[in-house]
Amino acid sequence: MDKITIALDAMGCDHGVSAVVQGAADAKKIFPFFEPVFFGHEDEIKPEIEKNGFEKFVHAPTIITPDESPTLAFRRKKDSSIVMGLKYVKEGSAQGFVSAGSTGALLTGATVIIGRKPGIERPALGTLLPAKKGFVLLMDCGANMDCKPSYLAQFAQLGSEYMQKCMKIDAPRIGLINVGTEEEKGNAAAKEAHALLKASGLNFAGNIEGREILSGEVDVAVCDGFTGNVLLKHTEGFAKILMSMIKEQLLSSTISKIGALLAKGAFAKLKKRVDYREVGGAPFLGLNQIVIKAHGSSDALAIKNAIRQCIEYSQSN
Amino acid sequence: MDKITIALDAMGCDHGVSAVVQGAADAKKIFPFFEPVFFGHEDEIKPEIEKNGFEKFVHAPTIITPDESPTLAFRRKKDSSIVMGLKYVKEGSAQGFVSAGSTGALLTGATVIIGRKPGIERPALGTLLPAKKGFVLLMDCGANMDCKPSYLAQFAQLGSEYMQKCMKIDAPRIGLINVGTEEEKGNAAAKEAHALLKASGLNFAGNIEGREILSGEVDVAVCDGFTGNVLLKHTEGFAKILMSMIKEQLLSSTISKIGALLAKGAFAKLKKRVDYREVGGAPFLGLNQIVIKAHGSSDALAIKNAIRQCIEYSQSN
Repeated sequence: MDKITIALDAMGCDHGVSAVVQGAADAKKIFPFFEPVFFGHEDEIKPEIEKNGFEKFVHAPTIITPDESPTLAFRRKKDSSIVMGLKYVKEGSAQGFVSAGSTGALLTGATVIIGRKPGIERPALGTLLPAKKGFVLLMDCGANMDCKPSYLAQFAQLGSEYMQKCMKIDAPRIGLINVGTEEEKGNAAAKEAHALLKASGLNFAGNIEGREILSGEVDVAVCDGFTGNVLLKHTEGFAKILMSMIKEQLLSSTISKIGALLAKGAFAKLKKRVDYREVGGAPFLGLNQIVIKAHGSSDALAIKNAIRQCIEYSQSN
Repeated sequence: MDKITIALDAMGCDHGVSAVVQGAADAKKIFPFFEPVFFGHEDEIKPEIEKNGFEKFVHAPTIITPDESPTLAFRRKKDSSIVMGLKYVKEGSAQGFVSAGSTGALLTGATVIIGRKPGIERPALGTLLPAKKGFVLLMDCGANMDCKPSYLAQFAQLGSEYMQKCMKIDAPRIGLINVGTEEEKGNAAAKEAHALLKASGLNFAGNIEGREILSGEVDVAVCDGFTGNVLLKHTEGFAKILMSMIKEQLLSSTISKIGALLAKGAFAKLKKRVDYREVGGAPFLGLNQIVIKAHGSSDALAIKNAIRQCIEYSQSN
């Protein structure tokens, strides 16, 4: 197997440089042909990679934080881990970039440095969500706020390609997230996008309502980045709240406590099934090269899976 | 206690006329001063109400179905249960209207027949969702697709009034649903609405992200009707999927099956907590009189609670 080099942002992760390096070490065990190059401050990276037997890194002295304006930060911080990592990929020195840093800066940087695929007006952020059966790719998850109908149709096209190549799904079923299944339903953008999708040649399953997003009836669920971002975060939040409600109820009596103890294994399996860390990161689709956004609160497991995703994506091209 | 008359659409409910009449009978037991007037086809209503000791009904021979265009149906079916019920409320013969029928027809009809409150450009549909603590009013849940910033600000004002009067919450905390907490985040409408809300004099808690909608930090969560409708239905769908995943896991081994049996009581309590039927219906806010939309798949319990909500809303004014 040929070597696959991946540029890793060592700085953007809430759990620190060590989580990124550990994630890379765990990925290396599964993919021996994988070669990481770490981007970030030398003083922080060096001791960590030496412990894990890695060598390659590029000193990037500054960090773009999530509260900075992406455009300003991108212009000012040419020596940041995000900008330097993206340039490294652009030059062809690595096959992809994985970062848990600022989504906005990553998007701005990737669009300017790496560039958009021909015919794509806006790259979008896709997220694989565990559905009733398999996974559904929700996109856009926050890259584009006010979307033209043509953007939505392109998100569908990009999502379809991704699910075909990376998830090995033939003719992925595309659903347009909307308030009703009838084609005249929705806001202005969704109504027009519906017509574009019908004529697109994609495997368009029509509008889907909120309750069908995770029901397993579609492989790609398309919406604007405002709706997608709110939906994605709400799903995370709601799962947590529901789990804490279950816990509270289970601990409310001795009998149900015993029940909970006996059902512990089942709950652990469920937790793994809905654990975002198992899925990996969110690919930016519509770019000329591979950029994966890992969750900001990623630990080594999530980083490992984002690297796996980057490798599989790279192999599929 | 003075008599409270409520007009009930007997026709729009998936579970039939009997569910509406049974819901009214159950409400009557708690609120003896409540007097229902049923709207719908005489042949269907008469036998049902006679069984339950009710008398008053108005013969409305046609039904507006959810797949009809609301505007057309409203214009053509003047003798439908929705149109006749709304007119009855407008005349002052009843204090409110409860219907499980077409949301669109109900909104169109209510806006034209009952009319908007002064200063309100668009009435909106609010839904009480069980949050980590108490309830959060999500609005708009589907009445208005493309929203001007001023609509969003008015939704906040209407939601604040409702939570104050009906849920007895002092200075309800308002959250604007958005993709980030920083005020420059969001789509065009949300950015401008943020500025309007800051200047509104309401207890504005700023932007909230998807994961905070149900966390109990706000009492009213404001968004456009497209986002709100998708969110609401997704919440319903996701809860069902998560519950079925839990069930599947619990039934996967004998030990966890025993655990599930012991924890049965705890699960039943949880189910009650997240059961939409316990909450009642969704009020249309911004109208001159009270109109409550009950869930289309309402049974007698849901109808009873929608009536309770209508009574409490009426008493609070």
